[in-house]
Amino acid sequence: MKFCSECGAPVAVRVPQGDHRPRHVCKACGTVHYQNPKVVVGCIAQWEDKILLCKRAIEPRRGFWTLPAGFMENGESAREGAARETLEEANARVDIGPLYSLFNLPHIGQLYLLFRARLLDLDFSAGDESTEVGLFTEAELPWSGIAFAVVTETLKLYFSDRGSAGTLLHSGDIHRETTRNPGSERHYRVLLY
Amino acid sequence: MKFCSECGAPVAVRVPQGDHRPRHVCKACGTVHYQNPKVVVGCIAQWEDKILLCKRAIEPRRGFWTLPAGFMENGESAREGAARETLEEANARVDIGPLYSLFNLPHIGQLYLLFRARLLDLDFSAGDESTEVGLFTEAELPWSGIAFAVVTETLKLYFSDRGSAGTLLHSGDIHRETTRNPGSERHYRVLLY
Repeated sequence: MKFCSECGAPVAVRVPQGDHRPRHVCKACGTVHYQNPKVVVGCIAQWEDKILLCKRAIEPRRGFWTLPAGFMENGESAREGAARETLEEANARVDIGPLYSLFNLPHIGQLYLLFRARLLDLDFSAGDESTEVGLFTEAELPWSGIAFAVVTETLKLYFSDRGSAGTLLHSGDIHRETTRNPGSERHYRVLLY
Repeated sequence: MKFCSECGAPVAVRVPQGDHRPRHVCKACGTVHYQNPKVVVGCIAQWEDKILLCKRAIEPRRGFWTLPAGFMENGESAREGAARETLEEANARVDIGPLYSLFNLPHIGQLYLLFRARLLDLDFSAGDESTEVGLFTEAELPWSGIAFAVVTETLKLYFSDRGSAGTLLHSGDIHRETTRNPGSERHYRVLLY
């Protein structure tokens, strides 16, 4: 952020009076521009013993598989957002169930909410942001080709929970590990609570 | 939003290519400025059979009582945010427990996450955004003086749950009712699922 979205003047980064953190503050009109975490909503859409994955057509992690998910929009609930993303990315209709996992990704300012869901029919196909959409059993799952740690962790929990009651929420944080070898595979630290 | 925060030129509201919704788009550099829901994090801090409430020193709903809660910040988890807000608003230290309620407020683009918590000591006092902080039993609770519907609904659930296992998450939406009499008391519709 370089300019004030209210008056167009340049902004400075400073701690406003009564605040504790540096913010973007307009040098002309004084407006404080807050930046807050974004919510990513999606679902684990199940059909018999299979779940729905999408192969990403876009960066980041193009060519890797993920659960249908995306940024929650103003004016919708988290569940509505999860259903909308599933329709957009997989042209798939789902009945959204209870919240299954809540993961904080503080290093990128994201909060992931992934819901249990029931796939309503097999008439799905790749949406604009996917190159391929498929149903996978646990054994068929492309574990080494999953796009994001939050999806891998959620799927590991999901398959180890199979057969259990099903209303338990899993919560945790995923932190990116700092590494001395920045070119190496990305490392994450997962904290469940 | 009237000006581009990247280049300072005026923005227009239009649907970007490949998108489904109107966004603020810069007329000069083309940057699309997304606006997404904000996450509010807070807690129900319990001490024996009492819970901690703060009387608001600021608008909206100045003079009304609420649970300690506020906007989640970048770089923190939801639980860390809930503990931070409790420290800021009530100078109170808490041990944050499991997520208790998740409410969508689509009409104002907010997602509320309220956690169970244990108040660690009685050395609390009003922070900058509170005029008063107190512990209340269910019978003492100022039900008609609660600031927000989301807090009233969460506290009703909380006291009706007392004695039960305690890891159940309550989820729902709170919609503002449109009313023909805009001067009248505000009306809400609550949907639990």
